[in-house]
Amino acid sequence: MKPTQTTTLMANAIRALAMDAVQKANSGHPGMPMGMAEIAVALWDGHYRHNPANPHWANRDRFLLSNGHGSMLHYALLHLAGYDLSMDEIRNFRQLHSKTPGHPEVGITPGVETTTGPLGQGISNSVGMALAEWLLASEFNRPGFDIVDHHTYAFLGDGCLMEGISHEVASLAGTLGLKKLVWLYDDNGISIDGKVEGWFTDDTPKRFEAYGWNVIRNVDGHDVAALDAAIAKAKTSDKPTLICCKTIIGKGSPNLQGGDKVHGAPLGDKEIAAVRQHLIWDAVPFDIPAPIYEAWDAKARGAKVEAEWNALFAGYRAQYPQLAAEFERRMKGELPGNFEQVLAAAVASCIEKKENIATRKASQNAIQALAPALPEFLGGSADLTGSNLTNWKECKAVRSGVPGNHINYGVREFGMAGIMNGVALHGGFIPFGATFLTFSDYSRNALRMAALMKIRSIFVFTHDSIGLGEDGPTHQSIEHVSSLRLIPNLDNWRPADTVESAVAWGAAVKRHDGPSTLIFSRQNLPFQERDAQTVANIAKGGYVLRDAADAKAILIATGSEVELAIKAADALAGEGIAVRVVSMPSTDVFERQDAAYKASVLTRGTPRVAIEAGVTDFWYKYVGLDGAVVGIDTFGESAPAGVLFKYFGFTVENVVAKVKSVIG
Amino acid sequence: MKPTQTTTLMANAIRALAMDAVQKANSGHPGMPMGMAEIAVALWDGHYRHNPANPHWANRDRFLLSNGHGSMLHYALLHLAGYDLSMDEIRNFRQLHSKTPGHPEVGITPGVETTTGPLGQGISNSVGMALAEWLLASEFNRPGFDIVDHHTYAFLGDGCLMEGISHEVASLAGTLGLKKLVWLYDDNGISIDGKVEGWFTDDTPKRFEAYGWNVIRNVDGHDVAALDAAIAKAKTSDKPTLICCKTIIGKGSPNLQGGDKVHGAPLGDKEIAAVRQHLIWDAVPFDIPAPIYEAWDAKARGAKVEAEWNALFAGYRAQYPQLAAEFERRMKGELPGNFEQVLAAAVASCIEKKENIATRKASQNAIQALAPALPEFLGGSADLTGSNLTNWKECKAVRSGVPGNHINYGVREFGMAGIMNGVALHGGFIPFGATFLTFSDYSRNALRMAALMKIRSIFVFTHDSIGLGEDGPTHQSIEHVSSLRLIPNLDNWRPADTVESAVAWGAAVKRHDGPSTLIFSRQNLPFQERDAQTVANIAKGGYVLRDAADAKAILIATGSEVELAIKAADALAGEGIAVRVVSMPSTDVFERQDAAYKASVLTRGTPRVAIEAGVTDFWYKYVGLDGAVVGIDTFGESAPAGVLFKYFGFTVENVVAKVKSVIG
Repeated sequence: MKPTQTTTLMANAIRALAMDAVQKANSGHPGMPMGMAEIAVALWDGHYRHNPANPHWANRDRFLLSNGHGSMLHYALLHLAGYDLSMDEIRNFRQLHSKTPGHPEVGITPGVETTTGPLGQGISNSVGMALAEWLLASEFNRPGFDIVDHHTYAFLGDGCLMEGISHEVASLAGTLGLKKLVWLYDDNGISIDGKVEGWFTDDTPKRFEAYGWNVIRNVDGHDVAALDAAIAKAKTSDKPTLICCKTIIGKGSPNLQGGDKVHGAPLGDKEIAAVRQHLIWDAVPFDIPAPIYEAWDAKARGAKVEAEWNALFAGYRAQYPQLAAEFERRMKGELPGNFEQVLAAAVASCIEKKENIATRKASQNAIQALAPALPEFLGGSADLTGSNLTNWKECKAVRSGVPGNHINYGVREFGMAGIMNGVALHGGFIPFGATFLTFSDYSRNALRMAALMKIRSIFVFTHDSIGLGEDGPTHQSIEHVSSLRLIPNLDNWRPADTVESAVAWGAAVKRHDGPSTLIFSRQNLPFQERDAQTVANIAKGGYVLRDAADAKAILIATGSEVELAIKAADALAGEGIAVRVVSMPSTDVFERQDAAYKASVLTRGTPRVAIEAGVTDFWYKYVGLDGAVVGIDTFGESAPAGVLFKYFGFTVENVVAKVKSVIG
Repeated sequence: MKPTQTTTLMANAIRALAMDAVQKANSGHPGMPMGMAEIAVALWDGHYRHNPANPHWANRDRFLLSNGHGSMLHYALLHLAGYDLSMDEIRNFRQLHSKTPGHPEVGITPGVETTTGPLGQGISNSVGMALAEWLLASEFNRPGFDIVDHHTYAFLGDGCLMEGISHEVASLAGTLGLKKLVWLYDDNGISIDGKVEGWFTDDTPKRFEAYGWNVIRNVDGHDVAALDAAIAKAKTSDKPTLICCKTIIGKGSPNLQGGDKVHGAPLGDKEIAAVRQHLIWDAVPFDIPAPIYEAWDAKARGAKVEAEWNALFAGYRAQYPQLAAEFERRMKGELPGNFEQVLAAAVASCIEKKENIATRKASQNAIQALAPALPEFLGGSADLTGSNLTNWKECKAVRSGVPGNHINYGVREFGMAGIMNGVALHGGFIPFGATFLTFSDYSRNALRMAALMKIRSIFVFTHDSIGLGEDGPTHQSIEHVSSLRLIPNLDNWRPADTVESAVAWGAAVKRHDGPSTLIFSRQNLPFQERDAQTVANIAKGGYVLRDAADAKAILIATGSEVELAIKAADALAGEGIAVRVVSMPSTDVFERQDAAYKASVLTRGTPRVAIEAGVTDFWYKYVGLDGAVVGIDTFGESAPAGVLFKYFGFTVENVVAKVKSVIG
């Protein structure tokens, strides 16, 4: 450890950069960086194993800022430690296309491991990372070769701890005993509305002990030595650790520290001058004295730890060449060389078997077909395994001390999604997790975060409509498929049969730049016959499933309603009215096709009728003002599925009538 | 207390009805009713103060089944206690339009206080009810006249306790010291995936002690006397109480009890026969022996407790006639007689002042104008009071032991919404609560539940688009306005100026059959001039704000983009192109207008361009295949608001170009 005077200067460098950058941007949050400065010094200077020159080193410790509004803390750290983040970027804090956006964003700033801001989610990601580390270590480490061996550290504040997701993920982390997870709690007693004592009086240490965590209480968050000791102790625990750091928000600001005014607004020139005087900080804004840069510089140490690991890995590769290659493939997120073959076989098998089964069962069949080729699969369900059918024959449940590849997440939908995102960010796995489609609501912001982060989380949602039946309107998705389609960069698939289900799984697995949802039926759906070209077109998201010469109308349907479209087409044909049937399992993917393909599927000028057992609004995008939609714009009802489809007008008669109405 | 033999028979009557109804429906959850039967006996026979003949008696205890999948428990209790729920309804369990849907639904079944099923939300409603009881009591009770004085009881299981929302609401209930709240925890160690020990190992009693609750541990959930004593003790506590009841799921089923198979599927005829033998229950399905009916009958006791209260209230009315009338008005949910006048004055004031302010500030002005006339206002924010501006001059913060009318909910968006729903269900208040629009995601399923339950919760969402600026994409709503519009029966308002903001507040307050969202800008928006008829049309959800003779196109805009539409119309007029500008603050309300009005606003055949700083998909419903939408189909960016509006194409030039493209 460095002498106190040095660590004080190091901490004050953070304070100066944070307050000056926020002031220059005239926007941002100085309170947290100034309050957590010593915690950052203790962790980054004493424990955090990373290499500024290579933010992607596989075995780096992971560091997350769950209280992401304090982004200037992270940017200051990255700049000072020697990452490729220049002072110009710091000056450009919160400006368009800078590397220093308002909240930390993975993929934008080297060294940022996840995107945070929506409170509670960063810590959920940290649980996923610690989980991934443990499972990868279990799979790849060999005696003398702990090639996967790192910690995951997260900063968090009162806001994260008030959020419900903190409960879900801390509870599961405790149950699973994720001992390499360390949370550093910025216990400053202040949130935006003021002193938290009016609305947040939890005995947080006791709460975390109830989760089975190692809790280190009452650490002075401005005493680097005490913090250093606490972190050292945390690293020896056999449980996840919460270090409770008593801090003063905005510390260093003589007139504002300890209050809510320092949280989320610039200090102002006058107070900034007062801080400089108070801290005896003479440097002008955005100027860091050379000795402080030297104290912070982590490049040499980083190069050394990575070099040591590289040597270890070279030895590992010599002894276990296949494992080493596999580890590298997994960490790169590349699929195995035979993946396309395995996927093609899975699709071919569906075509051959012609099964009339629920698509959730078809999904399980697809998982079963792909899993042997994809050891990176890490499945799971939020306590609906037998309904979601996310398990497969050889899968092994993860338990405390017992690694595996299927997770019983418990009834924790949001936590599951946040943990999956952390797993995906860590690398080494393709996480998928499931619940009923309606409860996608609970996890919705984590789906959004996955889309924003462009990561490969696969969200499986079953029981996708009124076909769920008797459980009734609380459990019947009406608006969900359409509302998921509105999230940018989220690919949503609602397959109609076994073949589409297998193709959708393949697309989700192959997608490298974003998450997918796979939306499946509870009830059986009939197999659809297709020629080879039609099968190939499924991957385009929308395609002509049944064509007709001189079609008078186009029926567009998804999932369980494709069957109805086909039957209606038959009935119309019987009356001499030719119609085309378009199956549209993924509007998101269809939209990415070229204009010519799209126009070949939805020919201009032909009247259209869309059919989907959900809200109608979205579909006017495809049918226009003159088309019609067979859908549901109210909540569902509790009754057997067959009764409901009739009750809500999903009948051949109704579709036929709608078609006749649009063709005039 | 009744003798043990009687209470055993009473409990077994629940078991028989539950297993037989589930069997007949071939769908449902027998495990919970069979496991919680004795708890139900202890509570309903010993403590629950209610009147089966009048489920709406104002001072009844509230009873909620947060583990709503055990709905047959509630239906059995209501039937046996003497509510208007016939045995035919029990036979019709889970059939279309029966009073016994799959999960309990308020408004469908007499005696059901809230709609449950989505786990964790029932208990959040119970916190709202206990909060409403306390605040109403504080306001209306007078010495000797505790006209508001009841308990709120909730049943819950492991699923509810795993959900994050349980943390949010238990934490706040503990902080506020809601002592008349009693939760009965069905600690059976089983969830759908099996024994919870693999994924849920919380020390739940310790966790709740950390929240400041009174915890009664280790109660035998099948010992009516022990349960009775625990409930009696809970009622004397000065804190909310969690009673931990050790139970056996599906108790009474000799071969299935204690396992996950009894949770959510019919027992089957063979096992049902075994249960009958095991319990020595000779009655045929749907037949309850008369002595058991007699033991359960709560009608006489219910009539008595309500009569006593009626006498008390008569005395109260004699002494405090105005208070009594006000209490009755409040509990009926009727607005004060002068409300329309107050609202009209608020709107008139906006018209007179012509302020160019953020609509969140306009919202605060509306609250300020209405609050003096609406003592039922119960405002709040999820730790963003100063940003959401939900407070008003005279409002008083609620604190433990200190009643008030504005709640600092803490960083608990989902919990806030669930609590608001409970407050609305209890009656006596119009709850509103706020967060940033993006974090509507966190509370989304509670918004859905409010819409399904048709209750008057008012959800205020500010910082509604890229206008939020530097906080960046994690905080910028892109898909949210449109995705809220997809929830059935939810009225969403995105006002363009002070006048629309006041009208939207009025509409939300006046709406008796469902919730509303009020969506406001962070940034200033200009006042729009209107004549009297145009002002009157705002309440129709969409209206012609600026007309033009021989309009070549219609510009449709909402909120902050109305300003842009007007400017574009000016620019187009300068080029000799006349366009109409339609402001559409609420598409939901607009859709309810008659066809003639709608056609008068959106004249058929005129090309249309919609402008909204959000996803475009929704708007094709209004512009059709030949129209255009100026929107954003990617995530936002971190930068000042002005920079972003330009960057994303919200410029007069772009709108003008789009209009020209659609008019050809």
